[in-house]
Amino acid sequence: MTEPFDAPSVIATKRDHKRLSDAQIDWVVDAYTRDVVAPEQMSALAMAILLNGMDHDEIARWTHAMIASGERMDFSGLSRPTADKHSTGGVGDKITLPLAPLVAACGVAVPQLSGRGLGHTGGTLDKLESIPGWNASLSNEAMMAQLEDVGAVICAAGSGLAPADKMLYGLRDVTGTIEAIPLIASSIMSKKIAEGTGALVLDVKVGSGAFMKSMRRARELAETMVALGTDDGLPTVALLTDMSTPLGLTAGNAIEVAESVEVLAGGGPADVVELTLALAREMLAAAGKPDVDPTEALADGRAMDVWRRMIAAQGGDPDAPLPQAKESHVITAPTGGTLTWLDALGVGVAAWRLGAGRSRPGDDVQAGAGVVMHAKPGDAVKAGAPLMTLLTDDPERFDWATEALEESFDLDDRDPSDLPAAASIVLDRIG
Amino acid sequence: MTEPFDAPSVIATKRDHKRLSDAQIDWVVDAYTRDVVAPEQMSALAMAILLNGMDHDEIARWTHAMIASGERMDFSGLSRPTADKHSTGGVGDKITLPLAPLVAACGVAVPQLSGRGLGHTGGTLDKLESIPGWNASLSNEAMMAQLEDVGAVICAAGSGLAPADKMLYGLRDVTGTIEAIPLIASSIMSKKIAEGTGALVLDVKVGSGAFMKSMRRARELAETMVALGTDDGLPTVALLTDMSTPLGLTAGNAIEVAESVEVLAGGGPADVVELTLALAREMLAAAGKPDVDPTEALADGRAMDVWRRMIAAQGGDPDAPLPQAKESHVITAPTGGTLTWLDALGVGVAAWRLGAGRSRPGDDVQAGAGVVMHAKPGDAVKAGAPLMTLLTDDPERFDWATEALEESFDLDDRDPSDLPAAASIVLDRIG
Repeated sequence: MTEPFDAPSVIATKRDHKRLSDAQIDWVVDAYTRDVVAPEQMSALAMAILLNGMDHDEIARWTHAMIASGERMDFSGLSRPTADKHSTGGVGDKITLPLAPLVAACGVAVPQLSGRGLGHTGGTLDKLESIPGWNASLSNEAMMAQLEDVGAVICAAGSGLAPADKMLYGLRDVTGTIEAIPLIASSIMSKKIAEGTGALVLDVKVGSGAFMKSMRRARELAETMVALGTDDGLPTVALLTDMSTPLGLTAGNAIEVAESVEVLAGGGPADVVELTLALAREMLAAAGKPDVDPTEALADGRAMDVWRRMIAAQGGDPDAPLPQAKESHVITAPTGGTLTWLDALGVGVAAWRLGAGRSRPGDDVQAGAGVVMHAKPGDAVKAGAPLMTLLTDDPERFDWATEALEESFDLDDRDPSDLPAAASIVLDRIG
Repeated sequence: MTEPFDAPSVIATKRDHKRLSDAQIDWVVDAYTRDVVAPEQMSALAMAILLNGMDHDEIARWTHAMIASGERMDFSGLSRPTADKHSTGGVGDKITLPLAPLVAACGVAVPQLSGRGLGHTGGTLDKLESIPGWNASLSNEAMMAQLEDVGAVICAAGSGLAPADKMLYGLRDVTGTIEAIPLIASSIMSKKIAEGTGALVLDVKVGSGAFMKSMRRARELAETMVALGTDDGLPTVALLTDMSTPLGLTAGNAIEVAESVEVLAGGGPADVVELTLALAREMLAAAGKPDVDPTEALADGRAMDVWRRMIAAQGGDPDAPLPQAKESHVITAPTGGTLTWLDALGVGVAAWRLGAGRSRPGDDVQAGAGVVMHAKPGDAVKAGAPLMTLLTDDPERFDWATEALEESFDLDDRDPSDLPAAASIVLDRIG
């Protein structure tokens, strides 16, 4: 077969600051999946895209070329509208766990295709797999049946959706080309558009524990993704949310499940409740139910009912005790005062070093490992009182984890009431 | 073995516009030759270098890391000083052929490690291989003996010199990363420094038939290379020379050998003679013999004597008839007038299409193929007079070659004496 382009000329186009044509983009993405474009050619192109950028139309075409590499799902046969949420990843980000059953309890089905964690940010599937018996892998038919019956499903994305993205993500991960906004946006949106959700809410994290450290970059990513979805007829909204400090009081797997169940029981940390409700309102509105208030379904136990049925439908026992770490180590406050700063990255790295996360795809994670926080910024603590409890099955990990926390918090002698009021966790809304 | 760095972090350094440290450069070049850094990682780094640049110290370190990947030769045991010349490649550039014996005849030994051609620029070894019996491959011992005995050797570079450069060049060729000046400069200079020549003269071509189309880029490349050599204690000079029109009246293999022999016999085209003498003077001066005038050795036959011995020492018969193409086709002047423009790129592409050059490394070339020019810019021609003769063994190539020449020359009705005087072929000197 004669190829209409050759890789060096496509690379040279972007290298020389020119636009890639639709035909060049369609060809290079497809030829990469056919091994006609070699990995060393695609990585050079990815670096040129990272440094020289792509405009809106190029990103949209690239997204569609990745969608065209695989299958598309379709939920239009369900009796309810659908809405999905995607988070760019943070520390203690268990929001999907209470959110999916809450939105389902309000009449909108949630087909949540999730991933596993890598590095200091946790993965939703890793957290749920700490529930005895729970299974992440569902066939498309089983997923559809559970969506109709229970209204919510959280499962692993099949290999059929945007396989070009899967290949390209693995390549970017080892070639320093993850950070390109056009490639991040097209990676996320190709999977969500191929998945076939009826509405999409993006939780774009900003701060030390997030992939995007600055509001400027986070806003650029959010605007790019919202435009990709909207142009494709997919109602899409993004919230920019704070990830300078961890979400809630836990960062790990089983301990985040337990905290999520507290939220579904009407309790839980205020920040987790606030963000869960904010995202639920956006999902309901995007799916055509702007007048439904999710607060009630959380308060009256309907969300908890959906949670129990959702876990049970995938083989999990919602009443089984969760795994516990074999060893624990308490970090105490060196002086009394007010906790003014608790760094998300430091806590995330500590949880990862304790065994809650993985260094390479395919590594095992410990269900019980992680960090439990006993205070959050703004709280008064006494000298010697516990600040954090570290959990792991391998006590030799404590020193390494403690190191990550040494420069990760500040105590000072101001009274909590003298501190500026804590800002809302939702920093901005795009869409 | 534990590696001191990982490839993504080295790539990210250059991606983020920072300097690569000495240790990062040493590691990444060495690890690439050990297959620890994968091709897709090196190509992403090459693209980041192309787009974000390297400073002088980074380029010098990169050059030395490539030298350290292989062996170094040493000519200090010879009874004569040594000087080498490197051309960045042009159309009709047969200068090495008369130059090496001429400089040797003046008392400076010339160890000329050459390459084969790719694309529209010819290769010195391809030209010499049209001489019956001539052999490009010599052992280091045979090369050294010939240098001592004859004073000049033109042969293939062994695989032992800068093998990292050989790997990297092959990768850059398919990933759109050839054009990076830091990588071009370090590629050339790593081989020349490893070769061990005592002095180096660079012929940096500028114009349509050259790799560098602009004086600005050619000067930047020349200055970078001269600084690399000088800092390393290697006396290095660069001439920027005109490659807007072909050198001499032939572009091919055997026909360029014949033209070189004319020069050695005291005749030949004025531009070839001028550039040969200019480069010979630079080589002699750089090797410590600034007072020797090469004009005499060309006029009195001493250079021709060295040529005959040099060819014979490598198995060639200097008296054997050269191969001739089976077919020829004459392009005539459509109108009478003065030839005001004859494009080097057009002639080079035509010669390549006739079979004188190769599309891929390893392809065969035709010894007799090429273009003989009957007029050069400034010459008066009559309507219907021959402008060029195309030579090939495959007559079906004539149409394709003719196409490349259609927009490659201009005739107008001014008298030659009304045209601006032709500029010197040497445009500038760096060093």
